[in-house]
Amino acid sequence: MREVSVVLVGLGNVNRSLLHILKIKQQHIQSQHGIRFSICGVADSKGIAVNKKGFDIDELYSLRPNGLSTVNLAGYIPNAVTSSIIKHINAELLVEASPVNLNTGEPGLSSVKSAIDSGWKVVMANKGPLVMDFDGLMKSTKENHTRIGYSATVCGGLPVINVLKRDLKAASITEIKGIFNATSNFVLQEMEKGRMMQDAIIEAQKIGAAETDPSLDISGQDTANKLYIIMRSATDFSGAIKEIKLEGIDNVTAEQLSAARSSNHAIKLIATAQQINGQWQLSVKPESVPANSFLASCSGWEMGIKIKTDLYESISMKNYEADPMGTAAAVLRDMIDVFA
Amino acid sequence: MREVSVVLVGLGNVNRSLLHILKIKQQHIQSQHGIRFSICGVADSKGIAVNKKGFDIDELYSLRPNGLSTVNLAGYIPNAVTSSIIKHINAELLVEASPVNLNTGEPGLSSVKSAIDSGWKVVMANKGPLVMDFDGLMKSTKENHTRIGYSATVCGGLPVINVLKRDLKAASITEIKGIFNATSNFVLQEMEKGRMMQDAIIEAQKIGAAETDPSLDISGQDTANKLYIIMRSATDFSGAIKEIKLEGIDNVTAEQLSAARSSNHAIKLIATAQQINGQWQLSVKPESVPANSFLASCSGWEMGIKIKTDLYESISMKNYEADPMGTAAAVLRDMIDVFA
Repeated sequence: MREVSVVLVGLGNVNRSLLHILKIKQQHIQSQHGIRFSICGVADSKGIAVNKKGFDIDELYSLRPNGLSTVNLAGYIPNAVTSSIIKHINAELLVEASPVNLNTGEPGLSSVKSAIDSGWKVVMANKGPLVMDFDGLMKSTKENHTRIGYSATVCGGLPVINVLKRDLKAASITEIKGIFNATSNFVLQEMEKGRMMQDAIIEAQKIGAAETDPSLDISGQDTANKLYIIMRSATDFSGAIKEIKLEGIDNVTAEQLSAARSSNHAIKLIATAQQINGQWQLSVKPESVPANSFLASCSGWEMGIKIKTDLYESISMKNYEADPMGTAAAVLRDMIDVFA
Repeated sequence: MREVSVVLVGLGNVNRSLLHILKIKQQHIQSQHGIRFSICGVADSKGIAVNKKGFDIDELYSLRPNGLSTVNLAGYIPNAVTSSIIKHINAELLVEASPVNLNTGEPGLSSVKSAIDSGWKVVMANKGPLVMDFDGLMKSTKENHTRIGYSATVCGGLPVINVLKRDLKAASITEIKGIFNATSNFVLQEMEKGRMMQDAIIEAQKIGAAETDPSLDISGQDTANKLYIIMRSATDFSGAIKEIKLEGIDNVTAEQLSAARSSNHAIKLIATAQQINGQWQLSVKPESVPANSFLASCSGWEMGIKIKTDLYESISMKNYEADPMGTAAAVLRDMIDVFA
């Protein structure tokens, strides 16, 4: 039985759901995978806390929604910079689930880089560091002979990255189309029913599905982030994220949704990657798709992807997740996999 | 670069497609995975042939539909028992794709057992050995410190087994529903259009999708075989295949299909596994499902699965394959994976 010391960065929806899963599944994980995860450090915007013997999971779970500052947690260092936690404790694994920040990449990018440079393994639910510095992270992971996992960054628990990287061996991907953002998909569905966009966004925030900044969902940026991570992970695309032509659902109207429905179509926010004359053409934009198509079948809280390759013809996958549990489960999957 | 010596059992649709893929992808496999597969033995119902230096793939590809007996292949031993090939050459990998035989399990079972006992790695496209002796194969694989792969046995190239075994970590599966047999799915679709069952079966045989014995498709036995392999691989089910309540599509009529359609439903041959009071209830039978459901969306040559778990909510996957290329690609995926 291997005891693995873990530092959590971020105490939002995903890591709180992870704590919940660890609480109810610790025994299962030990017996099935021979690993016991001990949370010996936590960091959020309020500071950091370390406990070499491992925190009580119930105690950590009780911290939010008020964050680290509200309790008298042993080892709490108020206002410490998030990434400084790597210097305060010698752990084996960093789980990074702080909010996406595409301006500075912080606090995720520094935390992830420091952990990798210290030879820790890293699991990310936060897309930010991958979008900001994909090449740098891969390079330093290799140089430090460590491993990173990030299957939770794309479509929650749906194993999109894993299937693309592991199960399509020897194939060349020719086209990808997907719905990667459940919030905007839910918003479009609710608008079709006659609801105002803003109301639907508020509901998505309440259940913890929306990004901390929901404009990332509506603008299509979150979808573009996921398409970028997919393309860098599973294809020969080596371009920049700005090569993705981006249009959000901001300007989609109830009238357009209703007109599409009348002609047996649905408007969806669709990410597309196509090989055209040997070049990848990437876009994220609202598209009208036939009602009986796979993408139209991804309704409300579902996300999905359709992958075409030269050998496996087409593979389509979708999931239904109305809370962050699936994403947290994907984090846990990676936590086990990086030690396999 | 690792050179891997391979013996192919069966020279039917799957292994012929595999030869085709090896022909066009050998370079890709070498550069991406550092492996070169050298076919140094082949066996079919006509005999065996060995060539320690590796056969020319074009020459092997040209053998069928007439089989080994028709050519003057170097190293050909007419009428030799299939599994005897393991004694004639010291290879590293057996790829078993002979026809399903649920009476004796032969020639697959003996070939696979002999290879494992000799410490070879084994990749199976043939479900027979797994259905006949799942426990025995797992036990001898462990005892001989070797590895087996069989992701090609369920839904062709769709990575059902891989996702269930690798990507749902820490979760408990609560329900599985799937369409695992493309031939019967195609037949039902064609019957709904007014075609005779026998005509549709003949078309399925022509494109190489039907089992060598198509009654396995129509009776639901092939679907039951796949459900059994899934359950033994990914759940705590330890029962026998006869615990699956089995009803095929033999008695489905054009009238029933048309009546279902009128009420916005579709009749599909559905495999079900449900946890009821802590016990698995397994069945394969024709069921009427809503036209807008995921399972109804699996049309014609598509196969699909919907998996419910406690952590990942629901995950649905389907593929489209109108020829054996996807299955052969899944074999190749496993051939690479068992050496990873």
